[in-house]
Amino acid sequence: MAHMLQSPPRAVHRLLPVDPQVRAIAADLYDRVAQEPVISPHGHVPVEWLATDVRFRDPVDLIVTHDHYVTRQLHASGVDPAGLAATAEHDPRAAWRTLNDHWHRFAGTASGYWIEESLAEVLGIGLPLGPEHADEVYDAVAERLARPEFRPRALFRRFGIEFLATTDDPLDHLAHHAALADAGLGGRVAPTFRPDRYTDPGAAGFAGNVERLLAATGSAATFAGYLAALEERRHHFIAHGAVSTDHGVEEPYTADLEPGDAERLFQRVLAGTADAAQRREFRGHMLVQMARMSVEDGLVMTLHAGVLRNHSTPAFERFGPDAGHDIPVPTDFVRGLRPLLERHGLAKDFHLVLFTVDETTYSREIAPLAGFYPSVYIGAPWWFLDAPDAITRFRSAVTETAGFYRGSGFVDDTRAFLSIPARHDTARRVDAGFLARLVAEGRIALPMAERIIDDLVGDLPREVFKL
Amino acid sequence: MAHMLQSPPRAVHRLLPVDPQVRAIAADLYDRVAQEPVISPHGHVPVEWLATDVRFRDPVDLIVTHDHYVTRQLHASGVDPAGLAATAEHDPRAAWRTLNDHWHRFAGTASGYWIEESLAEVLGIGLPLGPEHADEVYDAVAERLARPEFRPRALFRRFGIEFLATTDDPLDHLAHHAALADAGLGGRVAPTFRPDRYTDPGAAGFAGNVERLLAATGSAATFAGYLAALEERRHHFIAHGAVSTDHGVEEPYTADLEPGDAERLFQRVLAGTADAAQRREFRGHMLVQMARMSVEDGLVMTLHAGVLRNHSTPAFERFGPDAGHDIPVPTDFVRGLRPLLERHGLAKDFHLVLFTVDETTYSREIAPLAGFYPSVYIGAPWWFLDAPDAITRFRSAVTETAGFYRGSGFVDDTRAFLSIPARHDTARRVDAGFLARLVAEGRIALPMAERIIDDLVGDLPREVFKL
Amino acid sequence: MAHMLQSPPRAVHRLLPVDPQVRAIAADLYDRVAQEPVISPHGHVPVEWLATDVRFRDPVDLIVTHDHYVTRQLHASGVDPAGLAATAEHDPRAAWRTLNDHWHRFAGTASGYWIEESLAEVLGIGLPLGPEHADEVYDAVAERLARPEFRPRALFRRFGIEFLATTDDPLDHLAHHAALADAGLGGRVAPTFRPDRYTDPGAAGFAGNVERLLAATGSAATFAGYLAALEERRHHFIAHGAVSTDHGVEEPYTADLEPGDAERLFQRVLAGTADAAQRREFRGHMLVQMARMSVEDGLVMTLHAGVLRNHSTPAFERFGPDAGHDIPVPTDFVRGLRPLLERHGLAKDFHLVLFTVDETTYSREIAPLAGFYPSVYIGAPWWFLDAPDAITRFRSAVTETAGFYRGSGFVDDTRAFLSIPARHDTARRVDAGFLARLVAEGRIALPMAERIIDDLVGDLPREVFKL
Repeated sequence: MAHMLQSPPRAVHRLLPVDPQVRAIAADLYDRVAQEPVISPHGHVPVEWLATDVRFRDPVDLIVTHDHYVTRQLHASGVDPAGLAATAEHDPRAAWRTLNDHWHRFAGTASGYWIEESLAEVLGIGLPLGPEHADEVYDAVAERLARPEFRPRALFRRFGIEFLATTDDPLDHLAHHAALADAGLGGRVAPTFRPDRYTDPGAAGFAGNVERLLAATGSAATFAGYLAALEERRHHFIAHGAVSTDHGVEEPYTADLEPGDAERLFQRVLAGTADAAQRREFRGHMLVQMARMSVEDGLVMTLHAGVLRNHSTPAFERFGPDAGHDIPVPTDFVRGLRPLLERHGLAKDFHLVLFTVDETTYSREIAPLAGFYPSVYIGAPWWFLDAPDAITRFRSAVTETAGFYRGSGFVDDTRAFLSIPARHDTARRVDAGFLARLVAEGRIALPMAERIIDDLVGDLPREVFKL
Repeated sequence: MAHMLQSPPRAVHRLLPVDPQVRAIAADLYDRVAQEPVISPHGHVPVEWLATDVRFRDPVDLIVTHDHYVTRQLHASGVDPAGLAATAEHDPRAAWRTLNDHWHRFAGTASGYWIEESLAEVLGIGLPLGPEHADEVYDAVAERLARPEFRPRALFRRFGIEFLATTDDPLDHLAHHAALADAGLGGRVAPTFRPDRYTDPGAAGFAGNVERLLAATGSAATFAGYLAALEERRHHFIAHGAVSTDHGVEEPYTADLEPGDAERLFQRVLAGTADAAQRREFRGHMLVQMARMSVEDGLVMTLHAGVLRNHSTPAFERFGPDAGHDIPVPTDFVRGLRPLLERHGLAKDFHLVLFTVDETTYSREIAPLAGFYPSVYIGAPWWFLDAPDAITRFRSAVTETAGFYRGSGFVDDTRAFLSIPARHDTARRVDAGFLARLVAEGRIALPMAERIIDDLVGDLPREVFKL
Repeated sequence: MAHMLQSPPRAVHRLLPVDPQVRAIAADLYDRVAQEPVISPHGHVPVEWLATDVRFRDPVDLIVTHDHYVTRQLHASGVDPAGLAATAEHDPRAAWRTLNDHWHRFAGTASGYWIEESLAEVLGIGLPLGPEHADEVYDAVAERLARPEFRPRALFRRFGIEFLATTDDPLDHLAHHAALADAGLGGRVAPTFRPDRYTDPGAAGFAGNVERLLAATGSAATFAGYLAALEERRHHFIAHGAVSTDHGVEEPYTADLEPGDAERLFQRVLAGTADAAQRREFRGHMLVQMARMSVEDGLVMTLHAGVLRNHSTPAFERFGPDAGHDIPVPTDFVRGLRPLLERHGLAKDFHLVLFTVDETTYSREIAPLAGFYPSVYIGAPWWFLDAPDAITRFRSAVTETAGFYRGSGFVDDTRAFLSIPARHDTARRVDAGFLARLVAEGRIALPMAERIIDDLVGDLPREVFKL
């Protein structure tokens, strides 16, 4: 791909360690995998983009207003997201200038890296962001977006995506996925079963959601009927290529209830008469049920835990959900997951991938759990932790306990389609740097490091996600 | 200033990264800001020192007995602080020898760095600490302290202090601050409103303190009268140049109460009939009230949270407070501050600076909060964390989420006047090293790093503290 | 010792920092202590091995089946430990091949480092592990084990062990230790008093254990009698050379009870009528009693806190205890230990060494406590944290607050006799690298670093463990 880069060293050695000896080893390791296919087993790219091969509207729509990493940082800087969205509607160039006026605030952030990298590597724009060249860059991006080779399907092929998972509602028809199976994309697009709004009594509209679920599957309004409905929808997803389910919870609390207790609790949460403790029990029991279903139907279970959603009620009321004020909280995987793991942790071929935003759990909880349970895999650094220094800390925190083969492989978890290559490239570079240090410090031999980096981007995610 | 340094490399490259490429960039970045004015928006230098331009008594009085970082380490080494203080009274040289006999125990500590740096750079003493040269160094320090150029005002000018905040009791007359306004110091000395003993029902003498507050302001003994009294004293502080309030709490718990409930609680805590949970509610509510007043009067609110004071009752009884056994505890900013932020977090021009000694909260809580709320700023590493490695960990932990512009700028928080240049210099060097690594790894361009380091020591603290 | 190493750099620079300037300093520091005697004040080597000078059976028995670090990682990889143990009985070579087939899974782990190092340095085997040379390495190990110079006593002498503590049941006769005193080992083998099963009402068979204790000492079935029995056994241990006691707890909770309350609680826990809260109180009070006894008899008290034992009940039922699913949990030393430290924290010559597997407590809790209480020492990184990167994080986390002289010195805590030199060597190398960085960054002078590394491996553990 043609480049117009800011400076040659950036492209060559970006994110590799500075020490010449380590950098040389890291560069060799990175070169082995730089062009390997992208496996993206969890993310949020709207399947419609690929199904309809939509033309991205404008630079602001693509890069600014729909990325809550970006809008939250602008919000923190005093930019009103609602005002910015309104501006973006009638004068996207003005909204783009706002981003560029604040670009120094993104220096050193994950979002800053991804956006700069996307512009340079995907769109081939060599000018820096910031007020000086804002208009030129805007025009350059807009020019690219008008071209057919920057539509989603063309980019999908160019990105070398082997597997891309979307995240979908259990009642989704999945027709888009079905259509894409024959689209000749050169890679697979699979749905992911995300049932939170049907399993968490605290979710908005929970009772109505369950009613729709029961109606759609013709199931009885009993706990057994409800479980059967969920199982049926999981099979629908499997039939459309799904390999995993995803669960987002504030705490990884699980509870293993007797059937009678579960039935009574189900009726209470449906009726809205359950108190907070009972809603928690139900939510926790449903994680155990989801694990049980995974044992039975083979779907990999991924758990994203430890985020308190919508911290600011006034902001939620103005901007809606996913507006950048979902904030991590301390997370207890060890006691929280124990009931689930007591029941299913040793089950053959059960895979449970744990994602955290509380990095204290890496060395204390997740690596020790994954170092024993064959079912438990260490999720790649996620959300706030999906950035070069945080990935380095992650590798350091988990490797000495669990090695390299109990991890999930990199997961981009993104809706920002344009940034997918930058994210995977970052992980490959940081992992190469980490391995290179171990080689240079005489801890592992170079051939072992080569095998590991190959596996980290290839066989490992394929094994963990059963591809 | 004339130096008699141990070894030339120490002065030139102290605290800069070792790698030659990174060090060269870091040295250039550091050189830009090495001589920039000191902005010290929070600290504990006694205003009397400057008002009376006191002559520091002797080396031990200046460096040992009043610094609980030093006495705690000596205490841990088996030196009785009370005995040391008694010795210091009649034979300071003997007390100085005690410090020097234990100097190896300070190697690698923040206190060790600051003291060595103060001696070398401020007092121009090139001999190392330790038993070998203890008497010579004592004499050299004593000789300096006798000279006029080592009195507080001369040092203030020489240190290039642009702004220095003291910490003061709400009932303080602030006459010293008024007098200093005309002292031609070349920099401003401002008071800071620290109301804990009037707002925390667990504070010693709380009810009597509130009575004095009400009497001093002629306020009614109602919750409304109490709030009005606090507001009046805040205005007194503002009139004397204050820019901020400071709050030290064991936990950052906040509570947003109805006026009637607050009134009832106020009467109970005054009467001493409130239980622990009620005292906690009151304390938490007063933080929300303080935030409300900050929204109204513009004072920046700084919160130092997560320290259990006076861990050892026998030590407290022997040595009093601030004797080195205030110990950090896990801290929950996300749930604890939610009521305060729900109420005031989006208020225009409200600034809330969060200081922690639980470094797990940097990436998990504080950076995500500051990355969304325009009011929330990340306090510089504080207390046990105000040291080179800890500052590096801090930068790594917060930057990828919140960038460089959501921080407070460096805060020395110290009573050790002599160490102020060393502390700010340390932060500048460590930040230069951190930025240099990002440049060398191709993450940010050099001009951006230059802008950032300039802002970190200048415009950023000026903006955060409204200077 | 003769080497057949994989590659020369591994032996020379293993685990030292890569930067040439830092590495040179580190190598010099390491060279000072590389051949210093091993002081191992806490571990789990069976005293029988030394007493009977047992011949190690075969490579699998020595390296695989009894090391739960190894079996847990194999279990996580899908290898059934019970099946492996059965195979090991009749076909150890086949079990050895299983380990080697999975050897890439140990790359980068602490176990991987120790085993590779033991084979290379202790057994002098230069071939790498892995499927390719599995049989050759098996034969080479077996050949070594048949030779007299690879029996425990010969290795003990060759390892240069000055002091080795075992861990023993309070009712142990300690005859093996008595016999070893005259064995001419060139180093001392001392027992350690580990009373958990007699002091924790949650321990299996607690009441029966206490009965046996009372019977063995002829003590009355009162709390006073029980304490006297424990004191008597401690004196038996002291008479056999013990220097410390060890306590393993899920949480470092302590409680200081009135004698009457303690007596009542004792009767309840013995009768099995105590509820969970009462068992916790008793357990916590016994830690305070153990501290009191240490104050009186001088035994160093070591506390290993924060591990939830036997996380998986099905695994526990199949494999028994110590099967690799003891998992760390968040740990609160500050509030938990307060009653104990209020009572005994300032007692003269009381030594309390705190070990954690929750590394967040290093900078937040343990270093601040050890930086004040003369009794509190920072335990060396333990279990999952006893690995190069984790040791580096530990040094960084504690040193700036507490310096180098409030730590325990390295503690291997191992049953894997063969790995003792590798473990101590790792700590020496990592500490040398850490100190070298401080020197290269101009933080401490080289002579100070030399003194510190000497003390870390010699005088410091001797002082802490009263050797």
